[in-house]
Amino acid sequence: MEKIDFVTNGTVTSPQGFTAGATSADIRKKGDNRLDLGIIASKEICNVAGLFTDNKIKSPSVVLCSKRVFDGKAKAIVASSGCANASTGEQGFSDAIEMSALAAKVIGAKPDEVLIANTGVIGVNLPMPSIRAAMKKIVTKADGGHEFEQAIMTTDTMPKEVAVTVQSGPNNFTIGGVAKGSGMIHPNLATMLVFLTTDANVTPAYLKKSLTDAAAISFNMVSVDGDTSPSDTVLLLANGAAKTELITGKSGMADIFQRALNQVCIYLAKAIARDGEGATKLIEINVKKAANLKEARQAARTIVSSNLLKAAVYGNDPNWGRVTAALGRSGAQLEEEKLDVFMGTIQVLKDGAPVPFDKFKAVNVFKQKEVPITVVLNMGTANATAWGCDLTEQYVKINAEYTT
Amino acid sequence: MEKIDFVTNGTVTSPQGFTAGATSADIRKKGDNRLDLGIIASKEICNVAGLFTDNKIKSPSVVLCSKRVFDGKAKAIVASSGCANASTGEQGFSDAIEMSALAAKVIGAKPDEVLIANTGVIGVNLPMPSIRAAMKKIVTKADGGHEFEQAIMTTDTMPKEVAVTVQSGPNNFTIGGVAKGSGMIHPNLATMLVFLTTDANVTPAYLKKSLTDAAAISFNMVSVDGDTSPSDTVLLLANGAAKTELITGKSGMADIFQRALNQVCIYLAKAIARDGEGATKLIEINVKKAANLKEARQAARTIVSSNLLKAAVYGNDPNWGRVTAALGRSGAQLEEEKLDVFMGTIQVLKDGAPVPFDKFKAVNVFKQKEVPITVVLNMGTANATAWGCDLTEQYVKINAEYTT
Repeated sequence: MEKIDFVTNGTVTSPQGFTAGATSADIRKKGDNRLDLGIIASKEICNVAGLFTDNKIKSPSVVLCSKRVFDGKAKAIVASSGCANASTGEQGFSDAIEMSALAAKVIGAKPDEVLIANTGVIGVNLPMPSIRAAMKKIVTKADGGHEFEQAIMTTDTMPKEVAVTVQSGPNNFTIGGVAKGSGMIHPNLATMLVFLTTDANVTPAYLKKSLTDAAAISFNMVSVDGDTSPSDTVLLLANGAAKTELITGKSGMADIFQRALNQVCIYLAKAIARDGEGATKLIEINVKKAANLKEARQAARTIVSSNLLKAAVYGNDPNWGRVTAALGRSGAQLEEEKLDVFMGTIQVLKDGAPVPFDKFKAVNVFKQKEVPITVVLNMGTANATAWGCDLTEQYVKINAEYTT
Repeated sequence: MEKIDFVTNGTVTSPQGFTAGATSADIRKKGDNRLDLGIIASKEICNVAGLFTDNKIKSPSVVLCSKRVFDGKAKAIVASSGCANASTGEQGFSDAIEMSALAAKVIGAKPDEVLIANTGVIGVNLPMPSIRAAMKKIVTKADGGHEFEQAIMTTDTMPKEVAVTVQSGPNNFTIGGVAKGSGMIHPNLATMLVFLTTDANVTPAYLKKSLTDAAAISFNMVSVDGDTSPSDTVLLLANGAAKTELITGKSGMADIFQRALNQVCIYLAKAIARDGEGATKLIEINVKKAANLKEARQAARTIVSSNLLKAAVYGNDPNWGRVTAALGRSGAQLEEEKLDVFMGTIQVLKDGAPVPFDKFKAVNVFKQKEVPITVVLNMGTANATAWGCDLTEQYVKINAEYTT
């Protein structure tokens, strides 16, 4: 018997053996009192996997964290919001090292067993005196995941948390996750932070492979190609506390672990897209029957990140020309006379030619909170889905006034 | 003696032997009476060069026009606004053929001597009955360039016209041009149309080469990489009416012809960027000392098309982190510790580390109508400049309400 269920109010502390906590270090400004510094901890040492920004400018925290992930073991994650510790040079490195050491002391771990991530303004040093004073106040608790999530939010308007429990024969385990939204339409600067925990017993190699595969169909599909911030970080900690059999790439449980992890990652990815800055709607682009998977993904991402389409969705305007124009420049192989396009279930283009359609019904599709658009290339068998959000005046307002 | 001067009120009819005219064909709607159909004509047959959209979905008009440009000779261009004749299938082809034949009749040319371009809504057929009736009313005149320009404007808020006269020893010639703005921040759907004329005597081969080179540093630098509409078209007609010596790639005049053409193209490209939909400012990104030219251009284009930077410029917010973040994902080779960044003349990053700067002065740079930002990579000797505009609430408004 196999099943995957969502956990009510699930979060990163839903899996056994994980605790979390947060406090205010006034990182944004003195007297802010906003939660901005948090720790996720495991009693037992964890196998870890991580994915990091492709940006050539990486924050010192990312450089340090990726080195520790490469070493393969960790007991905790310390994270903060308000200051990205990016473009901060040598000082940034020593601050990242000290910050993780401070967290290690709180939870009784070795400094190099603590992973680190920061999000916020670039080019400003971490306020280490406040962080030193605040870190001591953190108490990690078995239900502390929600508090931790608060501490990593920036322009996010809602928390992004989820957990699923998995039953697989005699084995039960849980996967939990929290995310700090990209906070914008493309995560090309505002950092995407995702922290995942599981009490399953998973080898480091399979942890890495399953995280990479899950990210490919979730977090990588809310971003335009190559758009990453200096701080983007996805971390997965597996502490084995549920005492499952050891999950490897070859074990019978590999598949259900992957499916459960996909479900958690897609949930968080959609939450990030839905909560893009100023967004009022989630856009879902389904590309079907592409010549190959790479092109299917590229086409879906290109369409979902078209400013013109985003603005049209905001304006309830089923302007399918903006879909085909983005598709045409996506690099995906296509033959115009094979192309079908649907707004929701309403076909607007068939064999490359416009189909008369009920404009009123199409406008209604665009008026929903989730707007699905499907493009069928009829060139092969590869499918992909990408998520994004509409482009609103509010997005411009938020981003015109971020540091000032 | 060599010199290049701007012509007062210069336009596409400034070079000798070119005439132009326009009329209203009510393409947008009945009773619109807006100029929307125009012809540029030359008494003598012209050598022609053209550049067309890279989009895999090309309009039937683009397919027809590029074939005729490939044949190398033309006497006229017919253009219209309000309907792109894109995604219109077989009917679109026969309409394009008929439309050019109607124009040929007006000016006394053969049908295949007329080039064609359309801009406007996608997926709608040209209103041929109105076009048939209207075409006959067009009278091309020696000062008709301004009227023609009116007919190709869509959401453009100002005409984009220019001409330069060139003196090179005993040879004098003129190059003129008009453009229909991308009408948006990225020309990824709203069509960019550019029509250039010259009375210089230029071989087809050099015409093609010089147009390609001029576009590479002008029109291609107001676009994000690969972003093109189904209709983007740049055409250059040379009728030889100024009776210059024949300009080839090897002749002494090749260089000054190229420089004059560059000047015309850069003028029009900047005008397009400045008049992006909803824009209030021109952004100029200078990338210096890149490892190679391709990367310099790619970096400049990536930075200038960052939504976050565009919004920051609109908000007078000298947030240089958005510049470096875009640079980091541009694909250009860089070493963070070699990187210098300037807002106007104010240095904000030196050797990869933040430099304390007068925020008030930097805000003032952003408050100007032209905002220059310079990134020095110190990796090589290649330089490039790209132009764009700020992202405003007005952009969203315009694009949320385009077809509805």
